[in-house]
Amino acid sequence: MLRTHTCGELRLSDKDSQVTLCGWVQRVRDKGAMVWIDLRDRYGITQLMLDNSSGEALLETARSLGREFVIEAKGKVIERASKNNKIPTGEIEIFVGELNILNPAKLPPFLIEDETDGGDDLRMKYRYLDLRRNPIREALRLRHKVAQSARRFLDEQDFIEVETPVLIKSTPEGARDFLVPSRMNPGEVYALPQSPQTFKQLLMVSGFDRYYQIVKCFRDEDLRADRQPEFTQIDCEMSFIEQEDIINTFEGLVKRIFKEVKGVDMTEEFPRMDYDTAMALYGSDKPDIRFGMTFVELNDVAQNKGFKVFDDAELVVAICAEGCADYTRKQLDGLTNFVKKPQIGAKGLVYVKCNEDGSFKSSVDKFYSQEDLKAWADKANAKPGDLLLVLSGDKDHTRNCMNELRLEMGNQLGLRDKETFACLWVTDFPLLEWDEDSKRYHAMHHPFTSPHKEDIPKLDSDPGAVRANAYDLAINGVEVGGGSIRIHDKSTQELMFKHLGFTDEEAKEQFGFLMEAFEFGAPPHGGIAFGFDRLCSLLGGSDSIRDFIAFPKNNSGRDVMIDAPSKPSKEQMNELSLEIKALKLEEAK
Amino acid sequence: MLRTHTCGELRLSDKDSQVTLCGWVQRVRDKGAMVWIDLRDRYGITQLMLDNSSGEALLETARSLGREFVIEAKGKVIERASKNNKIPTGEIEIFVGELNILNPAKLPPFLIEDETDGGDDLRMKYRYLDLRRNPIREALRLRHKVAQSARRFLDEQDFIEVETPVLIKSTPEGARDFLVPSRMNPGEVYALPQSPQTFKQLLMVSGFDRYYQIVKCFRDEDLRADRQPEFTQIDCEMSFIEQEDIINTFEGLVKRIFKEVKGVDMTEEFPRMDYDTAMALYGSDKPDIRFGMTFVELNDVAQNKGFKVFDDAELVVAICAEGCADYTRKQLDGLTNFVKKPQIGAKGLVYVKCNEDGSFKSSVDKFYSQEDLKAWADKANAKPGDLLLVLSGDKDHTRNCMNELRLEMGNQLGLRDKETFACLWVTDFPLLEWDEDSKRYHAMHHPFTSPHKEDIPKLDSDPGAVRANAYDLAINGVEVGGGSIRIHDKSTQELMFKHLGFTDEEAKEQFGFLMEAFEFGAPPHGGIAFGFDRLCSLLGGSDSIRDFIAFPKNNSGRDVMIDAPSKPSKEQMNELSLEIKALKLEEAK
Repeated sequence: MLRTHTCGELRLSDKDSQVTLCGWVQRVRDKGAMVWIDLRDRYGITQLMLDNSSGEALLETARSLGREFVIEAKGKVIERASKNNKIPTGEIEIFVGELNILNPAKLPPFLIEDETDGGDDLRMKYRYLDLRRNPIREALRLRHKVAQSARRFLDEQDFIEVETPVLIKSTPEGARDFLVPSRMNPGEVYALPQSPQTFKQLLMVSGFDRYYQIVKCFRDEDLRADRQPEFTQIDCEMSFIEQEDIINTFEGLVKRIFKEVKGVDMTEEFPRMDYDTAMALYGSDKPDIRFGMTFVELNDVAQNKGFKVFDDAELVVAICAEGCADYTRKQLDGLTNFVKKPQIGAKGLVYVKCNEDGSFKSSVDKFYSQEDLKAWADKANAKPGDLLLVLSGDKDHTRNCMNELRLEMGNQLGLRDKETFACLWVTDFPLLEWDEDSKRYHAMHHPFTSPHKEDIPKLDSDPGAVRANAYDLAINGVEVGGGSIRIHDKSTQELMFKHLGFTDEEAKEQFGFLMEAFEFGAPPHGGIAFGFDRLCSLLGGSDSIRDFIAFPKNNSGRDVMIDAPSKPSKEQMNELSLEIKALKLEEAK
Repeated sequence: MLRTHTCGELRLSDKDSQVTLCGWVQRVRDKGAMVWIDLRDRYGITQLMLDNSSGEALLETARSLGREFVIEAKGKVIERASKNNKIPTGEIEIFVGELNILNPAKLPPFLIEDETDGGDDLRMKYRYLDLRRNPIREALRLRHKVAQSARRFLDEQDFIEVETPVLIKSTPEGARDFLVPSRMNPGEVYALPQSPQTFKQLLMVSGFDRYYQIVKCFRDEDLRADRQPEFTQIDCEMSFIEQEDIINTFEGLVKRIFKEVKGVDMTEEFPRMDYDTAMALYGSDKPDIRFGMTFVELNDVAQNKGFKVFDDAELVVAICAEGCADYTRKQLDGLTNFVKKPQIGAKGLVYVKCNEDGSFKSSVDKFYSQEDLKAWADKANAKPGDLLLVLSGDKDHTRNCMNELRLEMGNQLGLRDKETFACLWVTDFPLLEWDEDSKRYHAMHHPFTSPHKEDIPKLDSDPGAVRANAYDLAINGVEVGGGSIRIHDKSTQELMFKHLGFTDEEAKEQFGFLMEAFEFGAPPHGGIAFGFDRLCSLLGGSDSIRDFIAFPKNNSGRDVMIDAPSKPSKEQMNELSLEIKALKLEEAK
């Protein structure tokens, strides 16, 4: 080793030891007679010291050091005159006897400090410098800890980690696949997996009983801030179980991770809520239950009083913002503008102030009497001092809007503390959802999800009402995991494909291997997958998953550091029997 | 849970318990008055029993069960009349009270037993059935154990697991990349990584200090039996270290794995050998040192005696096969045919029998006296009863041939026991190797490997003689791992690219990000990567890595189970702005 100790290791008990440290120069303070250097590595910071007795040559070297130079320093551990109790090495410093520059450094394009002056683009281009900053390094350290904790738990529970292939077969169902042309099989392509779904099911058919994998998955979708073309899942599957067993097992996993990584003891059972209730009370299939402010439907008390907007609405729904009756005109206008933003798309917002004196003041006073408004307030359990916010319209859309408004109010009222964690199982998702574009039903999760047995007859009569044995884990309004009990017999799987609009040929072509496997003794099975990047960012108290990925891509799917993707060579394209369409290329220019 | 216990769990101490088991029917024995069923799951086999008292309906169900049916059996644990001490559950059986078929099964296309009647192709097509067989399941279980053991060791040593990207940039150096067309960046492609090499080096520049990852890598090469287009590496890198530190650290890792997975205590330091010695003594850079039979060069005693074949040869080399003087004509012809096989390509084989009476009998008696042959025998330390096998010709080729012959003799003499493990570090590899096709030097490992400092001047005068700070770990003649101390400064890296025939523009275009990173304070660093699939197969005592991969591909890179790769849809190709060249496609048909 080039060093005897790391920069986080030495203590007063090491006093008088001769040591060699290596690391990066965090800063140099030159006070003329004395020079101090903060030397940094992954493990900490140790102060180096030189004075007049060090000799001019050594002092000269010390003074020549720039930020981020890599150096080796030999010297003696001495007790500091003025101690720094903020860092573990703060009682000592190294009186330097020898100093070697292992590698000089150009001035970094941004400050390597907790609060940096680097913008996103610069930080991404020089990601290797960004990764030197404590917050990012700690984010990746947390990620490592989460993986360790998850593996330990699953290993203890007899899960076997099995690697499934990355070069698989393209299937049109679901999101868009990344394709990989095959040179050895010209004209054919592999696809990168969106998840190891079918493979983990085959492992159950193989009798592996309990499988897990922390695995990269890929989706060629247009990217949002919290999406990446490659992402990581904790992917799990179990045999001979029911939904209850999956929920119990993985609630255990999540509790373990919170305990080991955050020191948070979650002793209570996670609450559960079925999908319909979640939509009715929160307008979301991943409610943030750190706070209440649940939806109150006002149709029966608000309709048929002459206010056409409400009368024509499928749904009139309110939330009660406690203690907000004193919101100013400006604040209320702000909320109105918030819900009218194009990404939310409400037409307007009705408010009712429940005044301290028991009277009501609303934006629809013209249509409703004090008594009418009292009936609303009673329904919403509103007290004097509270504020009702009311939206109306088409049910699904209005719920969506109200969900956004509720979350915004949660933010404004400080009800969404990042260090408070509220977990919720959402169950009984619909099996199918209608797709306007293709005018057919799609699988809400994926085509392998089993329906509630008693709902199977509705597949023909009322497909949208069929419930699935599917469940999600939401934490603080973030969907952290989701899964289902799978179909494990060929006939149900065929029925499902039929209802998804597959012809027999298409089903066989794409999933024939799975349906054939079901004929050779498939056990009842089910599983779950956790979004690992998102789980880590949640644990780290961040909204952005990028800080928890070592080398993320930007919103155009580019790695700006290595400059990928890039143009292939002619030779590469020839080998793959491919060519890029000139026309399309021109359009893109 | 659908079961109360697994099929490997019940013991005599569970006698009289009411239990529910689930699993696969291994076999049914119907003795008329009694019916026994062997029920199997991942954890073991438990015997179920029914008799006349079970009732006709239940007996009928039991008799109807076929191989691999999935069933649920409820009943009472009873003591067996005739015990089976070969299995842990052999003292008990379940007297069945209820039997439910969870899923019937068609007759499997091959026997689900340790010795199967299924050929390779059939087993691969029905890999999910093959995975039910003990040897394959055990292989994957071993793989899991190796991963656990490696992770534990590296975690203890403060390595951080960091995931590096899978969608990266194509670089023409090295093997052929798999390409992934980018839809969002038309005309551009990602590449799948052949290794995370540059990323782990950037992590060192970032100060991560100790990195590891068990990671999928990809090479689009024509496949041999022991190669797969996707394979897994244990990939590691350290900062502020020298070669000695890497070797010590990862010798520790390998010892830990052998201890934990195989129960083998490797207390001694692994021997080391430089590349030149390995080539001279074994004709291989990954010698199998489970046995001796090292090469003996006979040039000085065998040349200039009138035998033109030897006189014209660059190298005359022998091995001494102990106790093989009694090899028959047929055996010797067999060896001659072996070395003359096209894949080996020797022109012929000379033998010398060292007879028990002190005389010699050789295939070149006409050219050599008994005294001459005695000189050979003396040089080779051959005793009466031994057999010398001699090859001659161009040095490199002859060494290759002799390496193959030595390994073959090792096999014939039973010197290559699969449960004996001989580890060897091979060091000081050449930095460059001459490539006849491109008429230039290539990096023997990769362009980031550092040269011996004292050899740098030879880069101009004698490039082939420059040694690298590179090392491989060979176990039983298999290259299990390899690595190097990296270049960490821009100027040496530039020099290296220059000698590899890169123009400045090419170097900058492909590796500009790395060279720029070296300017911002790169620490001295180095690392190693282990071939995880191969390490597992070695530990499992198998020559084939396929059995240690859950879903392997065949020699054409196909997954015959899911039938990948496959033809993309027109829509997919349009979205990627790609088309398949009609001509090439036609050729391929």
